[in-house]
Amino acid sequence: MDEMDALRLSREVARNVLKAINSIPPSKRGEFYEIGKSGVTKLIDKVAENSALEVLRKENLRILSEECGVVGEGDIFVALDPLDGTFNAIRGIPIYSVSLCFSNSEKFGDAFFAYVFNLCSGDEYYADRKAYKNGKEIRIGEKERLEDLNAIVYYPDRPLPFKRIRALGSAALETCFVAEGLFDCFVDLRGMLRIFDVAGGIYILEKAGGVAFDEKGQSLEKKRFEVSERVNVIATNRKLYKKLQELVV
Amino acid sequence: MDEMDALRLSREVARNVLKAINSIPPSKRGEFYEIGKSGVTKLIDKVAENSALEVLRKENLRILSEECGVVGEGDIFVALDPLDGTFNAIRGIPIYSVSLCFSNSEKFGDAFFAYVFNLCSGDEYYADRKAYKNGKEIRIGEKERLEDLNAIVYYPDRPLPFKRIRALGSAALETCFVAEGLFDCFVDLRGMLRIFDVAGGIYILEKAGGVAFDEKGQSLEKKRFEVSERVNVIATNRKLYKKLQELVV
Repeated sequence: MDEMDALRLSREVARNVLKAINSIPPSKRGEFYEIGKSGVTKLIDKVAENSALEVLRKENLRILSEECGVVGEGDIFVALDPLDGTFNAIRGIPIYSVSLCFSNSEKFGDAFFAYVFNLCSGDEYYADRKAYKNGKEIRIGEKERLEDLNAIVYYPDRPLPFKRIRALGSAALETCFVAEGLFDCFVDLRGMLRIFDVAGGIYILEKAGGVAFDEKGQSLEKKRFEVSERVNVIATNRKLYKKLQELVV
Repeated sequence: MDEMDALRLSREVARNVLKAINSIPPSKRGEFYEIGKSGVTKLIDKVAENSALEVLRKENLRILSEECGVVGEGDIFVALDPLDGTFNAIRGIPIYSVSLCFSNSEKFGDAFFAYVFNLCSGDEYYADRKAYKNGKEIRIGEKERLEDLNAIVYYPDRPLPFKRIRALGSAALETCFVAEGLFDCFVDLRGMLRIFDVAGGIYILEKAGGVAFDEKGQSLEKKRFEVSERVNVIATNRKLYKKLQELVV
């Protein structure tokens, strides 16, 4: 499987998820699918995952996703978030997405393609060696002063000097917003993110010229496509990273 | 002018603003209109305000708005935010709105009608003695435990125990989201909000059964429709207010 195969497959996943979600009446979007030992599963998450797996399982892939864990066999690993921003989707707040990241091993560092689809606007982000939005190359912003930053932070635990702080509820989309320069950084040090929440968006952000590290300054390359993996992220441009780390850690 | 007149007029304002904004090509949305002594004015804000004033100035109203200050004569006072969420509108993030609040004096406490229109979804919120979304009555949520809250906070300056924290970038819409129970509180103690940013949404939230006070526990009733007025807000349901105040002030 090469980048073109991954793009074709990702688009098919996005179309299938969009169709499946839109077939759920708004009044049923918040319903539970099951309450089991692995926690609570929302109907909309299960519907989204099933519709993504329906496409992906036609190929030889090892797929990591929230509800199903790991399914499938193959040399290519896929970190899948079929619906990033469930809270928004249920409430009709138009910020949610599908996210995929393809890797040649179980490590994020061997990723070769990522795809994030905005399920509300239809905007499509992907990256192979470069990063694109709707087919046009994107680059991360170049701001250097903390006072000028439009920042995404989950969640501020102290006063921060940024111009604006937002938390919109879809890490995959928000990292793409940083990749295209709409925002200047994405920070989440809660120890809550899973690798499939951010692998797609972070790969795109890196290929747009950005960098992503954890709170210790370690790259995310060694992070594994596993359900138990937890990820902290400071993602921004190269000039800002050190300043940000000093500020928020 | 009664509530029905105010509703009819507000709808005309919303339609006019929507049409005017959508006529600006996306590539021009971020342009400046002028950089003058009162600060920087964005083209999109000026276009929105002009299109709102075009409608409102046909009536005998004293209108308070960001760019124009106070215009018009009349016994009815209107706090107008023609485009709440400019940052989002410029970036294509689909969360921005028009907000109006009608009062029998220059005080918020004499308000009798408010209207907030979601310029992206077309959702319409208004309140006279009750609050409505798209014609159906809405009520604020009833959560009491801090750990269960989906909170909107500008900006957290300490760790907070909430379930979720968001900052979506349109105070008018976010207070309406609280009014309809999608979120549980709206907190902004930065001393930055102007009365026209929040008068519409707060009036709707109160008529949906909620309460709004400043950081000292004072109601917003005495706040005046003036450009210089700054507002701090803790808005939530009656049971939560005290707990929230103790936590965030």
